[in-house]
This record gives sequence, C-alpha cells and structure tokens, in this order.
Amino acid sequence: MDSCVIPLRHGGLSLVQTTDFFYPLVEDPYMMGRIACANVLSDLYAMGITECDNMLMLLSVSQKMNEKEREQVMPLMMKGFRDAAEEGGTSVTGGQTVINPWIIVGGVASVVCQPNDFIMPENAVPGDVLVLTKPLGTQVAVNAHQWLDIPEKWNKIKLVISKEEVEQAYQEAMLNMATLNRTAAALMHKFNAHAATDITGFGIIGHARNLAQQQRNDVAFVIHNLPIISKMAAISKAGGNLFGLLQGTSSETSGGLLICLPREQAARFCAEMKSSRVGDGQQAWIIGIVEKGSRCARIIDKPRIIEVPYRGSVVNAQEASNNNASPPQVQQT
Amino acid sequence: MDSCVIPLRHGGLSLVQTTDFFYPLVEDPYMMGRIACANVLSDLYAMGITECDNMLMLLSVSQKMNEKEREQVMPLMMKGFRDAAEEGGTSVTGGQTVINPWIIVGGVASVVCQPNDFIMPENAVPGDVLVLTKPLGTQVAVNAHQWLDIPEKWNKIKLVISKEEVEQAYQEAMLNMATLNRTAAALMHKFNAHAATDITGFGIIGHARNLAQQQRNDVAFVIHNLPIISKMAAISKAGGNLFGLLQGTSSETSGGLLICLPREQAARFCAEMKSSRVGDGQQAWIIGIVEKGSRCARIIDKPRIIEVPYRGSVVNAQEASNNNASPPQVQQT
Repeated sequence: MDSCVIPLRHGGLSLVQTTDFFYPLVEDPYMMGRIACANVLSDLYAMGITECDNMLMLLSVSQKMNEKEREQVMPLMMKGFRDAAEEGGTSVTGGQTVINPWIIVGGVASVVCQPNDFIMPENAVPGDVLVLTKPLGTQVAVNAHQWLDIPEKWNKIKLVISKEEVEQAYQEAMLNMATLNRTAAALMHKFNAHAATDITGFGIIGHARNLAQQQRNDVAFVIHNLPIISKMAAISKAGGNLFGLLQGTSSETSGGLLICLPREQAARFCAEMKSSRVGDGQQAWIIGIVEKGSRCARIIDKPRIIEVPYRGSVVNAQEASNNNASPPQVQQT
Repeated sequence: MDSCVIPLRHGGLSLVQTTDFFYPLVEDPYMMGRIACANVLSDLYAMGITECDNMLMLLSVSQKMNEKEREQVMPLMMKGFRDAAEEGGTSVTGGQTVINPWIIVGGVASVVCQPNDFIMPENAVPGDVLVLTKPLGTQVAVNAHQWLDIPEKWNKIKLVISKEEVEQAYQEAMLNMATLNRTAAALMHKFNAHAATDITGFGIIGHARNLAQQQRNDVAFVIHNLPIISKMAAISKAGGNLFGLLQGTSSETSGGLLICLPREQAARFCAEMKSSRVGDGQQAWIIGIVEKGSRCARIIDKPRIIEVPYRGSVVNAQEASNNNASPPQVQQT
C-alpha cells in the first residue's frame, strides 16, 4: 500500500502515515520543494484521504554548496514545501536537516482517520474502469531538458522536437508534479472509487501491477490509452524507446492517481476533475478497464497515445512570496 | 520541544511525532541500527510517553559499498533498528530507502495520545532537582576508539588510558546509546516529573538551556555533578579539553533524559531506575538543582566528575538472531 495504516487504541481511529525523500530533479528550488511535498502527500491522497494532520520535513544540505548557494537555495526549497503543505490544508511542524554530499528533500505525512476517511485499495471489480489523473512522461521531459546542454544526446531527439517545445514540456512536467492529488482524493469518495494508487518510481505499469495484486477479487487491469505530455512519446521513440515510456515503465515523480471506478461514474469523475477550481483545470482520462483475471496488469499492444498539450507557466517563488511573507524554518532537535 | 504535538480533530487526542536521521558512528551495523532507533524514540520518552504507535525507517545505502558489503551491512542495521523498536513495544511498518554517497539511518516515531499520556516540558519550579539517566562522554569514547588507529591522535591520550580501556569505554558508550529511555519515561509519571529533555547533539548544557527557556516559571538550572563514562574526562583533559566535555558542550548520541523532579522524589526515581529489570541496571544521578532565575542553565566551576564504571559486553546480532529469526525488510512506495 502507499501508506501504512495503524489501528489505534482509541475509538476505532487509525494512524495513516507515509514518508518519501529523494534528490532534486528540477532546477528551480521552489518548485522542487513543492514537488517533494506533493509527492509525500500523494500517498495519502491515493487512499482517498483529503486531510493531513501533520507534516515533517526531511532535508539535507549539500556539503558541496558554499554558504551563499545554501542561503539562496535551501530557503526557497523549504518555502515550496511549506506552500504545498499549506495548499494541502496542513503545515510543517518539525523535521530534521543534515549535511550530505547530495541535497535531499522529502517528508513525512501523518493523519489520524476514522474508518470512512480512507478507501482501502482492494475492492476493484470486473466492469470497473481505470482513470488516470495526470499525464505520463515527467522523466522524459526532465531528461530532455537536461539534454539541451549535451550535444550528443540532443542530436538524437532534435528531429522530433524544438528547443522551445522541450522547455514547454519541462514546465508542464513541473506544473504536473507540483500539483496535489487532493481534488482526485475528494472525488474518489463522491464517485465511489474501489481502489487507487499513485504513479511514481515504478511507472504506470509497475504501480498498476502492485495495485492489481492487492485486490480481493480475481481481476486484471488492462490499459488501452496512455495520456502523455505532448511530444514525449515522440522523444521516447526517437531515442530508441527511452525509459520504456510506451511500455509504462518510465518512472514518474509525483504522478497522478490511478483509480478503479464504477464504469457509470468515471465520466462524471473526469468532468468534475476538469471543472474543479482547485485542480487548476487538471484533466483525468479513462485509460483502461478492469476485467476478470489473475491480479495482473498489462498495456495492450499499440495503446492509443493521448497527446496532452502544454498549459501555461509555473508559479514562481517571487509571486508566491507576495502571498506569504513568513520566513521558512524547520527546527527540531 | 523534542517532539511536535498536534491536537487532533478527535476527542481530545493529540498526535505526537518526531524524526531523526544521521550517519553511522559505530562500526557494528547491528548496534548502529539499535542506536538509531533508540535515538528516535528518545524524543517521545523525553515527554514521558512510553508507547509508540508506529515507526518508519529512513535509510540510505552508500553507493560506495559493493553488493556484498550491502548484503552484509544493511540487513544487520535494519535488524538492530527493528529489534530496538520491538523492545519499545512498537514495530516498523514502512519507510524509504535511497542510494546516497553516505549511509544514513534514522526514523520517524508517531503516537496518538490522551492528554495524560505526555508531560509538557515546562513546569519546573525552584526547589526541583535535575536527574540524568545516562552518563556523558559518548562522543569522546567513539572518537578515542577511532584514534587507536591514528598514531598522532593516540599519542596525545595514551598516557591517561590503555588500549583495553578505550575498547571497554567504546563498548560502554555503545551499550548506553542503544539503551531505550523508556524506563525513565515511565518513572517520570510515577514520580511526578515537571519537565524533561533528552541529551543529544547540543551536549548537556545546550539541551539544559533549551529546556530552561521553555519553562513557565522563572527558573535556572544549575548543574553540580557530571556523570561521565570512566576515563573520558581524563582523555578530554589530556587532549586539551576535547569537545568541551567538562563544559557540557560535547555532543551525545542517544543520550539520557535530563529530568526536573520534585526534590523529595528524586532519590526514589534513581533507585527505581537502577532496580528496573528492563533498564538493565541503568543508573541515574542527581546532577543539579532548579533555582529561581531567568530561564538559563549553567555548570558550576569545578563540577564533581562521577566516573561511571564500564559494565559488560554488548548484545550482538548473532545472539539477537537466536531470539528473532524474521528477516528484516522495509518496503513502501
């Protein structure tokens, strides 16, 4: 499961908790903080949990940064993390910071829940459909952006994409990774979701398989459609099936939720995702079906690629500062 | 405070939570795991909390270790962590493991409490006494042990200690660091403790000052006695006041609790600490007094050094294996 669920000694309550930490993958420290926080919270959202009682921040400062770099980078990263936590209706009350060769950013999200607050990811039935709430391709977009500066890499993909498009795809990937899956979590209750997980390091097929294995019923997940950030499928093909994007093995960071929904509810789920004020026009797609099977998952041969267009630009720290002037701090011994 | 306390939406309950992670400081991976876990739990124990509902383990494997080294070291470290968690009446249900230049080990401890379960560290009054539940000197012992192999360092201290004594002091430090402060936490309730903290990176004087600053009353902490692992004070002096051990600034890892107790209760607290079956003959010492003052802390000139003798040898992983054969595992995505 994406989070651990611990029954408590108090009146039917459970502690649901998750942790995640990793290394920066985008250049903007503020966005990196937001992405790290969205990624931690996502494990709660995958269980249909919309509230978080507490967050801890886990950080390491790189020993290779000089004082000036630290002062520029770390407060922005912390601010991004805190801003995303605030957007999730929670706040960061503690954490730990160490010195390390590499920068680390992550956190711990905890919530105490009543039984109805969360949806155990185990009740998919044949006839359900699979919905995905963010497009795939973040790993390809982030790598393509790095390749702008590496001629031998860039030469492999330059026939299928312009530099400007790479920049736009990268911005789109950042925006998606920094978006909370909270709206999707709330709609899981409204539309009676049977199971869900979030898409991260194992790619869509890895997480679909994990989810299939946890089901009570004999089901199989079959994926027909792959919504992918525009042009990332072309890059993947041009690079010789880069990261296995079309096989669903490409890692995602802070990806969308993959949700098993009753067939008759799915279209309305997607419509409400798109119209939600909070989700900022976030789309969702019906990407497959649940059929009878042996708790496995597969992508059909030649799935339909849905090219998801680029939206706008990313919130930057400057704009965010205007909304929230409190200094970022994490201290706990 | 050592832990964060989050009021919950459910019937007067609070979520109390803490996280800590750091780098190995002893050579035995099993003991390192135990120490890391004891260190995380200690922040709960400092608030008089004796139960823990859940632990997460935070790990990084060093990229510099080859496969064989990883297979030898990491399972032992995880087993040590798990065994200590079990001793604390809890278990590890999740976590995160990454690759990093350096090994990292740590965790997150969480508990949902009723108001009576924890003691806010803010009610010291003039007339209280200060009790410490583990001897100081872990940093000196760990460093002296490393200096056995560094002639220019060893030459500075060899007149005051033998190699055998360094080895014994190191074992004693490991044993102390791996000991849970759980007995002390339980006795805090029995003997009506007014405030407490655990002694870690800022040394006894740093943590005493932090604790003093949090008090509601106008108090000052005055430390008269320093219980120190035998010979560590001599090493510190021989090395030119190494780490400021006698000034109380030497870092401790997984140190004891510093507790403000009513004067008439303190002797019985110390007696019960020593006789407790669980604490394994763990001692406690009255080290100072609480007087009227401006929320500060100091060590008197020429404090009395209590030389704390070495006890026995350390539990090793082999022995522990005989008691608990389950394989260590942490997985969560």
